[in-house]
Amino acid sequence: MAKTVLITGSTSGIGLGIAKEFAKAGYNVAFNGLEANGAEIAAAIGQEFGVKTTFSAANMLNPDQIAQMIADAEAAFGGVDVLVNNAGIQFVSPIEDFPTAKWDAIIGINLSSAFHTSKAVWKGMKERKFGRIINITSAHGLRASEFKSAYVAAKHGVTGLTKVLGLEGAPYNITCNAICPGYVRTPLVEGQIKDQATAHGMSEADVVAKVMLKKQAIKDFVTVESLGALAVFLASDAASMMTGASLPVDGGWTAQ
Amino acid sequence: MAKTVLITGSTSGIGLGIAKEFAKAGYNVAFNGLEANGAEIAAAIGQEFGVKTTFSAANMLNPDQIAQMIADAEAAFGGVDVLVNNAGIQFVSPIEDFPTAKWDAIIGINLSSAFHTSKAVWKGMKERKFGRIINITSAHGLRASEFKSAYVAAKHGVTGLTKVLGLEGAPYNITCNAICPGYVRTPLVEGQIKDQATAHGMSEADVVAKVMLKKQAIKDFVTVESLGALAVFLASDAASMMTGASLPVDGGWTAQ
Amino acid sequence: MAKTVLITGSTSGIGLGIAKEFAKAGYNVAFNGLEANGAEIAAAIGQEFGVKTTFSAANMLNPDQIAQMIADAEAAFGGVDVLVNNAGIQFVSPIEDFPTAKWDAIIGINLSSAFHTSKAVWKGMKERKFGRIINITSAHGLRASEFKSAYVAAKHGVTGLTKVLGLEGAPYNITCNAICPGYVRTPLVEGQIKDQATAHGMSEADVVAKVMLKKQAIKDFVTVESLGALAVFLASDAASMMTGASLPVDGGWTAQ
Amino acid sequence: MAKTVLITGSTSGIGLGIAKEFAKAGYNVAFNGLEANGAEIAAAIGQEFGVKTTFSAANMLNPDQIAQMIADAEAAFGGVDVLVNNAGIQFVSPIEDFPTAKWDAIIGINLSSAFHTSKAVWKGMKERKFGRIINITSAHGLRASEFKSAYVAAKHGVTGLTKVLGLEGAPYNITCNAICPGYVRTPLVEGQIKDQATAHGMSEADVVAKVMLKKQAIKDFVTVESLGALAVFLASDAASMMTGASLPVDGGWTAQ
Repeated sequence: MAKTVLITGSTSGIGLGIAKEFAKAGYNVAFNGLEANGAEIAAAIGQEFGVKTTFSAANMLNPDQIAQMIADAEAAFGGVDVLVNNAGIQFVSPIEDFPTAKWDAIIGINLSSAFHTSKAVWKGMKERKFGRIINITSAHGLRASEFKSAYVAAKHGVTGLTKVLGLEGAPYNITCNAICPGYVRTPLVEGQIKDQATAHGMSEADVVAKVMLKKQAIKDFVTVESLGALAVFLASDAASMMTGASLPVDGGWTAQ
Repeated sequence: MAKTVLITGSTSGIGLGIAKEFAKAGYNVAFNGLEANGAEIAAAIGQEFGVKTTFSAANMLNPDQIAQMIADAEAAFGGVDVLVNNAGIQFVSPIEDFPTAKWDAIIGINLSSAFHTSKAVWKGMKERKFGRIINITSAHGLRASEFKSAYVAAKHGVTGLTKVLGLEGAPYNITCNAICPGYVRTPLVEGQIKDQATAHGMSEADVVAKVMLKKQAIKDFVTVESLGALAVFLASDAASMMTGASLPVDGGWTAQ
Repeated sequence: MAKTVLITGSTSGIGLGIAKEFAKAGYNVAFNGLEANGAEIAAAIGQEFGVKTTFSAANMLNPDQIAQMIADAEAAFGGVDVLVNNAGIQFVSPIEDFPTAKWDAIIGINLSSAFHTSKAVWKGMKERKFGRIINITSAHGLRASEFKSAYVAAKHGVTGLTKVLGLEGAPYNITCNAICPGYVRTPLVEGQIKDQATAHGMSEADVVAKVMLKKQAIKDFVTVESLGALAVFLASDAASMMTGASLPVDGGWTAQ
Repeated sequence: MAKTVLITGSTSGIGLGIAKEFAKAGYNVAFNGLEANGAEIAAAIGQEFGVKTTFSAANMLNPDQIAQMIADAEAAFGGVDVLVNNAGIQFVSPIEDFPTAKWDAIIGINLSSAFHTSKAVWKGMKERKFGRIINITSAHGLRASEFKSAYVAAKHGVTGLTKVLGLEGAPYNITCNAICPGYVRTPLVEGQIKDQATAHGMSEADVVAKVMLKKQAIKDFVTVESLGALAVFLASDAASMMTGASLPVDGGWTAQ
């Protein structure tokens, strides 16, 4: 019987790329995201890869909606075997002017939502003696950049949560790991290019070459397909002893 | 002219111990905390060490009260030279049953308050071209234990925030570092002993020997005086090139 | 055309397990190791999986033999696409009595040999614009245990070398990563169980339960197959942006 | 009674700076180094600060000379209370051309010598129930730069050794920590500026601004005085619970 993966923030960008890799590997996929046509995106992937899909518009700032999303996926597929916490937002500002509302939103969406989803899937994973929680963090889950206080704090927070859930899941064959990408060219990054150009007073081209990929030794963006391939690997039985770890896919960023 | 330190959560436990070391070193101390007699505690320390003190009862969950606390300290002393983010709470529970309200409170007090205080002191530190932000995190800012999802996530979050503020402060002689204690016998830890005894079904004595200090190679509790001494060192000119770092004081916990 | 992997220390234990996974994936395999019947082991794997194999008895303490081993593999297969540095020895003793000869041997075999092999394959990988160097380190490449000064120092050294080679390889599509296993039941570990039983004055059964797997949250040994699967993944195009990283496969050891 | 510190490589650069801080704090100092007038340097420091000093020309590649150096210091002062492993060399080259003799020398001097000295002081520290081992590593004990394979491997190796000795020393009040400086303007660094100018084809001024301090957020060199101050702090009773740790003094290098 096909396994099921639920991926937050999966109607675009990294999440959508990961969803396609799981679909390609035969998983049912429970989508979630902000796109108005999320249901159509989910259905199209289902048709393309011959797997079952669902869509939830649950707001990652709303614990009740998150719990409902998990319950719906469990009802639809008989359980959530793999949870990918991918939803995230970004905001760039010097600490002095960083809006409190932006801090709260980033902590809520990028960090607390992963707590809510993990809590909600836990009982089922425990009962079925199988679970894989995969958190898409960032090189910023391990290192900092200036002007990103909320993002870096939230991502480091998920790094910590990943470790705790790895430990708590040990007796139940539930693993929890994080994938830490460097820069991936997604809508989020397109926005960051613009924001940083403003913050640094640079052209967008210079931001890419001198700011964004400056910290990567390999001067390429990470592809969503490669993140999906690693996530599918982590979901496999071969990765049953990998847990609590944060795995960089960052072109050498964190090595230096 | 004497420098000024503001320490959150300083009317008891680690914060109070750190306050005494700064007072001993001649700093004015702006206290903050939950103790009903906080003003008296502050006054007594002032008298004992011959320094000026103030007290604020600001709630670490309330950004406006935090901003007011900083403004009051700046008005009283002409500036806050050293900020010690120490306030913190703990709650222990398996993820499956972890109350959302407890998650929110721990993230708010242990993580977000450090954002609010740092944001509030930043302008003054920048103008005076001197600032030291010292975050009291934990070995749990670097490693995890089961049943502490919120605490570990919050402390890792502060580890990340510490790095960002270290980078952003670099042009202004503002440094930001974290001190990561192992187990310190404080009221908070007394509570943890009780909580873990319940969670693990063990006697409190066994919790100390087999759970709490199990991860430390040195089988002693950390003293508040030693944390204060390190904080005073970090506030000195000799530490002007230390920034963004998390410094374990943990009896070898994180080495293994 | 089939790719070629060269694996040091591959006639037994982890190295042999990794070799089988690469053979299963269709790689030619250049074996190396101490087993007297190494050539037969290599031939048997070649027959079982329908791939070409060679065997070198090069001594990992001898740079000239190492250079010859690489040259031979390049001559036999047209190039070494993937290098797995796996050879290693262990010795356990308090620092006070740690024999200098043992220190030198462990540093030489566990650390310096990876320098010699990497140096020798570099030119070819650079010319072919493809290379994967995979170092089998250990949780001890990231954390320490008492009485293992040489092993931990050597493994941490390889962690550092891994980062450097990741950076240097970036312009040439050469990646370098480390896999950090927890405890794998191999002949080496059988020896460690005996050694630690002596060092700690415990039964061998207690060493397994209370010493070896004490630090892992998941109370299982890591399998050689799972290490091989991760190595094969790292050798794939999907992992082209992973470099300089150390990836724990340790049942949660390094998370706590 | 005055405590005694033995510092390797202390007749110039960082080691000499650290020696002065210990002398200022009232320690007897056992010097070691390559300077032909080492004995005069030692005597001059002794006179300036009113402390006893000795000098050993022991070669850090020679275990017997190292053991003799420790024995001589113990005979002269009644024991070595604090050991600072500071001796080190550097060599910069792409891996492909890295001379094996340079690899061996760097591993020997920067890594293995710390094993030999630590082993030699251990018995005395254990008997006196007090010891402080302080390893001067580098940001390169935690992160890599290209073309420094031997240096980064050796320094990471010391990071690991530091953790092991922290654990082994726990029952005896022996702590072991590492200080990880960023760039310090010493004779070694003067040489690195020249070497990197050649390796990168840049002017020496550009090497300083764009290569050396590029990775530091704070655009200053670290001072030897500040390293000495931290070392003296680590030697104090206040630091008795700090062990196995690597403490960056790097202007934010490792935070990003």
